[in-house]
Amino acid sequence: MESADVRSDIPILEEVIYLDAASTGPTPQPVVDAMCDYFYNYNTNTGRGAYSLAIKTTQKMQEARQKVAGFVNAPPEEIIFTKNTTEAINIVAHGLNWEKGDSILVPNIEHHSNFLPWLRLKEKGVNVKVIKADKNGIINPEQLVESIDDTTRLITITHVSNAFGSLQDIYEIGKIAEENESLYMIDAAQSVGHMETNVKKMKANFIAFPGHKGTLGPVGTGFLYCKYEDAEKLEVSDLGGGTVLDVDENNYQLESIPARFEGGTSNIAGYIGLGASVDYIQNIGLKKVEKHGLKLTKELYQGLSNVENVTCYGDPQNIYGIVSFNINNIHPHDVAKILDEVRKICVRSGHHCAIPSMKHMGVHELGGTVRASIHYYNTSEDIQALVETVEDIAKTFGV
Amino acid sequence: MESADVRSDIPILEEVIYLDAASTGPTPQPVVDAMCDYFYNYNTNTGRGAYSLAIKTTQKMQEARQKVAGFVNAPPEEIIFTKNTTEAINIVAHGLNWEKGDSILVPNIEHHSNFLPWLRLKEKGVNVKVIKADKNGIINPEQLVESIDDTTRLITITHVSNAFGSLQDIYEIGKIAEENESLYMIDAAQSVGHMETNVKKMKANFIAFPGHKGTLGPVGTGFLYCKYEDAEKLEVSDLGGGTVLDVDENNYQLESIPARFEGGTSNIAGYIGLGASVDYIQNIGLKKVEKHGLKLTKELYQGLSNVENVTCYGDPQNIYGIVSFNINNIHPHDVAKILDEVRKICVRSGHHCAIPSMKHMGVHELGGTVRASIHYYNTSEDIQALVETVEDIAKTFGV
Repeated sequence: MESADVRSDIPILEEVIYLDAASTGPTPQPVVDAMCDYFYNYNTNTGRGAYSLAIKTTQKMQEARQKVAGFVNAPPEEIIFTKNTTEAINIVAHGLNWEKGDSILVPNIEHHSNFLPWLRLKEKGVNVKVIKADKNGIINPEQLVESIDDTTRLITITHVSNAFGSLQDIYEIGKIAEENESLYMIDAAQSVGHMETNVKKMKANFIAFPGHKGTLGPVGTGFLYCKYEDAEKLEVSDLGGGTVLDVDENNYQLESIPARFEGGTSNIAGYIGLGASVDYIQNIGLKKVEKHGLKLTKELYQGLSNVENVTCYGDPQNIYGIVSFNINNIHPHDVAKILDEVRKICVRSGHHCAIPSMKHMGVHELGGTVRASIHYYNTSEDIQALVETVEDIAKTFGV
Repeated sequence: MESADVRSDIPILEEVIYLDAASTGPTPQPVVDAMCDYFYNYNTNTGRGAYSLAIKTTQKMQEARQKVAGFVNAPPEEIIFTKNTTEAINIVAHGLNWEKGDSILVPNIEHHSNFLPWLRLKEKGVNVKVIKADKNGIINPEQLVESIDDTTRLITITHVSNAFGSLQDIYEIGKIAEENESLYMIDAAQSVGHMETNVKKMKANFIAFPGHKGTLGPVGTGFLYCKYEDAEKLEVSDLGGGTVLDVDENNYQLESIPARFEGGTSNIAGYIGLGASVDYIQNIGLKKVEKHGLKLTKELYQGLSNVENVTCYGDPQNIYGIVSFNINNIHPHDVAKILDEVRKICVRSGHHCAIPSMKHMGVHELGGTVRASIHYYNTSEDIQALVETVEDIAKTFGV
């Protein structure tokens, strides 16, 4: 499938220039169709041993899990379905049996969802060591090594920064975690669906994924890759229906993995949609998606940084899919609003749920940044339209 | 709208006799349409100050919250969107600042989701007092009073048992909680959308609701009513994007209520669907739904209990929407399978995620019960088909 084929599956692209993939990916029609098929033809709950429509739903959910697992090269039992990336990270933060004096290494360039769940563990006597990124938002693995000691229980990092697009060396950091026998967690919110994601190569114990961003699945879906041996040790956050095998008035016996982590009725339609979206991305081919993404990222960074009075952030050699920028003396929200009003260009503005990274990059006082983010459906024409309009705004309002 | 109008909005009812509303309500077409409208026409993330499509999405989410709040007579800020009822209950169990010696009263007739989150608090030194229901699965408010003492921090109960349909006197129990100054939580999983639900009259601090059962919204949705003053004291379970106003390397400042409880990207499509489903139910009229439900419940209980070798559970005067039964000497799963094979009747069988209640009612060793559950789209013909087929099975296989 070419970019134009994907565009024809996403009606809103006829109306707007959508440069906000990092926020949510628009869901292509075949994915919505898979959800409608559930709602119209077998809209039942899962559960073993029941009537045939419920068995069909259970099978469809198993298929969805297999598809998603295959997509990241994991066995299906190592995939825990969640409502979003945030929940996936919190499951790990809540579930590890923390001891006073344990320490966690977390960069200062993270999204709040991979920062706050760890920061809060300070209440339990956990030391949270915040690792400074360089001026481009990159974590130097060597610097990370300096912060490691015997208390380092977990190292966590985001693969691609949602705020600046900074691409971290997760493979090198994985080696460091392994050598130090620390647990390793990756927030893959901005990389999955954009580039090859192979949990075996990533060598992490835990990887948090959204369903609705790069994979183009529906909102309300995410998943946690969790190594089986680590899942066995993880306390279950939300107990309830489907999480236990037996209960009496004093005790309970947990269900198998991953069921014990998925209490209550699931977003069945959503996960079936997610399975369809994974098929959809694989139909395009991840290599093609990544090549297209790298090309557009380069065009985006070069185009914007050539505009007078515009500052782009990050190292163009080390970003993927996301370019954060500002026009001198114009508030990022105003830039976003004008882009929308003038040319129906959709970009985010503000702190991007990453205030520590805004402070680190010196843009917090400016109100954050304007952020353009791309996916396979975007074209060079989209980038050109953005660059031209930014140029006009900079000329008209910039100082 | 009459029952036949609703039937025509739910395609699977042409294929099967669906008597499994307690598990999930099939989603009517106008609700699916509202979700498709989101996916096809404004598939963006929420967030203030961004481009107009994102503003539209934010407004639509606000409208959905207002609709849902209005449906249960709550102010919108007292509605926390969740992925399901289980999550809603766990938010409260995790969030209350428990102290050693606190006690909780919880019936032995609960769904696991309103049992396990409390049971686990024993680890924190909380006393979990399990209150015995009577032989019909009903909690006697006077007996509850006997178990109350100065340590009683919370009383929790399910409005309508998912396993036996037992309808509890939540209003009387609410008075008892108020007099004793205990917190009061209701699990409304099986009542909302079936009968008037007015949080002001229910006088509970916390009420957990599904979106996908009685309200006929999509799977992947639920909500927690939480009194504002109680929400202010509740610790946030899942921190992340959207839950804070400011963050530095040592601290964070929480967002307003309910945003602080809804970390990460929401199931936007789902909640918009839920808003539409609430409209849909209100279009029918809850009084009509309840009247129809009471009539069918009576037909169901009477019809089944008249069949030789069939046992129905519970007090027919005190059940709503759900009838649990067994045919002597036939495993409930076998009954469910035969009903499906012979006449495409969809009913649940087994323990219904309520093992303590199965043990209490003496059916655990039998493999649980067969459970038929109804909603407004069901007809007397559906009930008749079930009763006739059960009669045939009892005659053919029963002893």
